[in-house]
Amino acid sequence: IEPGTPCSVCARCREGRYNLCPDMRFLGSFMSNYPGALRTKMAHPAEMCYKIPDHVSFEEAAMLEPMAVATQAVKRAQVKMGDKILIAGAGPVGFLTMLVAKAAGATRIGLTDINANRLAFAKDYGEGNNCETFDVTADGVVAAIDDDYDIAIDCTGVVSSTKTCIEKLRKGGVMVLVGMGSQTLDIAPLINKELDMRGVFRYCNTYPSCLELLATGKIDVKPMITHHFALDQINEAINAGLTDPTAIKVIVHPNR
Amino acid sequence: IEPGTPCSVCARCREGRYNLCPDMRFLGSFMSNYPGALRTKMAHPAEMCYKIPDHVSFEEAAMLEPMAVATQAVKRAQVKMGDKILIAGAGPVGFLTMLVAKAAGATRIGLTDINANRLAFAKDYGEGNNCETFDVTADGVVAAIDDDYDIAIDCTGVVSSTKTCIEKLRKGGVMVLVGMGSQTLDIAPLINKELDMRGVFRYCNTYPSCLELLATGKIDVKPMITHHFALDQINEAINAGLTDPTAIKVIVHPNR
Amino acid sequence: IEPGTPCSVCARCREGRYNLCPDMRFLGSFMSNYPGALRTKMAHPAEMCYKIPDHVSFEEAAMLEPMAVATQAVKRAQVKMGDKILIAGAGPVGFLTMLVAKAAGATRIGLTDINANRLAFAKDYGEGNNCETFDVTADGVVAAIDDDYDIAIDCTGVVSSTKTCIEKLRKGGVMVLVGMGSQTLDIAPLINKELDMRGVFRYCNTYPSCLELLATGKIDVKPMITHHFALDQINEAINAGLTDPTAIKVIVHPNR
Amino acid sequence: IEPGTPCSVCARCREGRYNLCPDMRFLGSFMSNYPGALRTKMAHPAEMCYKIPDHVSFEEAAMLEPMAVATQAVKRAQVKMGDKILIAGAGPVGFLTMLVAKAAGATRIGLTDINANRLAFAKDYGEGNNCETFDVTADGVVAAIDDDYDIAIDCTGVVSSTKTCIEKLRKGGVMVLVGMGSQTLDIAPLINKELDMRGVFRYCNTYPSCLELLATGKIDVKPMITHHFALDQINEAINAGLTDPTAIKVIVHPNR
Repeated sequence: IEPGTPCSVCARCREGRYNLCPDMRFLGSFMSNYPGALRTKMAHPAEMCYKIPDHVSFEEAAMLEPMAVATQAVKRAQVKMGDKILIAGAGPVGFLTMLVAKAAGATRIGLTDINANRLAFAKDYGEGNNCETFDVTADGVVAAIDDDYDIAIDCTGVVSSTKTCIEKLRKGGVMVLVGMGSQTLDIAPLINKELDMRGVFRYCNTYPSCLELLATGKIDVKPMITHHFALDQINEAINAGLTDPTAIKVIVHPNR
Repeated sequence: IEPGTPCSVCARCREGRYNLCPDMRFLGSFMSNYPGALRTKMAHPAEMCYKIPDHVSFEEAAMLEPMAVATQAVKRAQVKMGDKILIAGAGPVGFLTMLVAKAAGATRIGLTDINANRLAFAKDYGEGNNCETFDVTADGVVAAIDDDYDIAIDCTGVVSSTKTCIEKLRKGGVMVLVGMGSQTLDIAPLINKELDMRGVFRYCNTYPSCLELLATGKIDVKPMITHHFALDQINEAINAGLTDPTAIKVIVHPNR
Repeated sequence: IEPGTPCSVCARCREGRYNLCPDMRFLGSFMSNYPGALRTKMAHPAEMCYKIPDHVSFEEAAMLEPMAVATQAVKRAQVKMGDKILIAGAGPVGFLTMLVAKAAGATRIGLTDINANRLAFAKDYGEGNNCETFDVTADGVVAAIDDDYDIAIDCTGVVSSTKTCIEKLRKGGVMVLVGMGSQTLDIAPLINKELDMRGVFRYCNTYPSCLELLATGKIDVKPMITHHFALDQINEAINAGLTDPTAIKVIVHPNR
Repeated sequence: IEPGTPCSVCARCREGRYNLCPDMRFLGSFMSNYPGALRTKMAHPAEMCYKIPDHVSFEEAAMLEPMAVATQAVKRAQVKMGDKILIAGAGPVGFLTMLVAKAAGATRIGLTDINANRLAFAKDYGEGNNCETFDVTADGVVAAIDDDYDIAIDCTGVVSSTKTCIEKLRKGGVMVLVGMGSQTLDIAPLINKELDMRGVFRYCNTYPSCLELLATGKIDVKPMITHHFALDQINEAINAGLTDPTAIKVIVHPNR
């Protein structure tokens, strides 16, 4: 299920940006007004439920929500064939953004993080050759990153990352903001390089294409699922997600 | 004449954004690498020269350059019919942006400044009824501005103006930056309202449509031309532009 | 009221093109599945009802429906400032397309018809100077029309008109089809000039901007309303619309 | 080398559509005004020459020209992630369009032809599972093709193929015309389904992304190269291309 239910009749809904609906009812615990999904049965509008194809597992389908965020970022970035893209942050959203950007035609990816393990995992996951990783804690690394990226996508919400992204864009490039944080930025480069900067708020019309990417095997999300818990282990599950350094995505199984 | 001459063969030139050409030779004194236009004769590439229609005067044609900036702002904003637009700054670029935005279909304009005289001139110029002006030095005025603008265009480069613009945009709105300054901004609203923020650097492919606007009488720029000087009065002319509070646009006539 | 009510949850509705909803319930008699609007009271979904501003009359508001078609044509054409547009057909939709295209920034309009009276009315209505009219029944007229139009909009559905439109477009131009008819066309010019050809089916998200155009006085539709009838004169009203050569738009007043 | 040299200063060149330049000098024998490339040395403008990366062979690089056509078709179609695309014609341009469309995010491809061998080759080439092929000479096959394609690309120039493409598009779909022929078509469905129909004329700004697709291994064109000849065997080479049913692409080697 797609967790948000828009009103479907306001101006934003009717122009195809229902993620901006002021009357959105959004399931979940973070920035949400509609809690209560941690149970085995619930009612949800039919048009926000998607049938999982036979050969896609429930586990893979559980990855649709973060994939939807990554897909919204790629759509907002208007990634096109041959683009060179810098992604800041090698967490789950950063990984998925890399995979989705490649599926959308990106041919070169640069990926920055401060955690060498995550970068190694990402590099491996990113089919190696066309993904260049940068440990930005090391001396001189930021200075050495190419400065001709077409698109940069910040998945960290950390001001130094966003600054690096803007600095490494070519003239006329596109900067996409996914990660939320306290970002007070100098916007002069937006004028000097005539950049576009675009925010990402949740997602809109992305579930169908994400399901297609899974169903046709264009993206394999299984390596990202590292931990499994039953519903009555919900506290352990949440703790693992928050504190276990080896956890990338943690799945809670209602019927296990 | 259009003052910049791009290389016309680099990637930016070939994709139709020649204003971003790294080898641009741009006439002028500010941020320019190609001085020397204050003379009676000079050579300039034919494709950057435009024939003035018979009933457009040299004085009106001299307004093409600031109109080109305003037009680039309107193009970058993707103004469309029925849009409600907030413009910060009632100087020449702000005025022209208002006129061009109306010519492009905007039906409601809000205009902010700190100078009551300029706002009065603008209101009058803006055909009155559909231009609302705001003297943002007065108490409570900023709080009273509508917060459902589709587009905001900052022509000031002043951080408080840009902040007001962002605050007054509806979800999914577009913020355009024209005025350069030292702007350190909180970019969280770009995510929360999924805004687009777009810089404007000079102009590209705007002279032909500006000439059309003058030639067909859709825009009348004559009221903006307040002062005239001969070429040998160049110092007085520049002083008037910098210091005379009644000067909006100052014209230097080479043959007077 | 906007006469169509879409399902608002299908793929087309959710991507902002509700006019293509397969479950649309559309009021009216032509190509419609939802008759019965010729009465004094009826229920209609709130989101498809628009409040008329105080200074817009019911008569003007009755013109919103054909304006909505014209606006959809202008939106599909992506009219922008400075465009030169050829419109085939000087009937009500052709007139309104001319007015809306001008409001959207078009600076030069060419208008073709086979009826000299309509062309004269249109020329007068089109603020004279920037509207060139062509009586295509006269010898040599078609050959003399400029062939550098950016956009052509066919409001006739007649194959010879559409052919002329295509022939008069510049390379890379846009051809919009509004008028329905039996049009069997040679599409080779679409390749040779890399044209775009776009159909228009009813309208989507156009009522709010049409109301704005009326409310702000950018478009005056009153001269097009030539005949008035009471509801119990409905047959006379329909006859006038079909057969009276002086009728442009006929209004039926429920309470007269 | 990219075979066309535009003037680079006309309106089309300056807006980023240099393929529509009226003063284009285009090498080649078909629809060309600039013959003489069948020799071992020639001068060509530097900006239309591209450096081949070390691990891309001259043979693969020779495929850039038809890839550029396929890429222009995919760009004009605005293929995006998750799109379902119908391609008419399993010749070299049809094959390459399939590969490029997949690289640009298409997840489902339908491919029609009248030649079973070509369809089998294409199916195999198209990574099998997500490419459905249709031999349209067999009874009932056309009727059985899905009618919910997002995009259709006609690479045949045959009127029955284009008709099938239009018929199989969903409402709001996009029809792209690549193959030239004598196509007289009923355009009523463009209105009824509010379709876009877009021509493709050569290519513009496509070589860099095609080179990226080869250099990063996203597309493998080697299986399409079936025949090789030396320059002094030019007549045999051209004959093979025209008449040998096993020939897909024929390469002439200047130094062999």
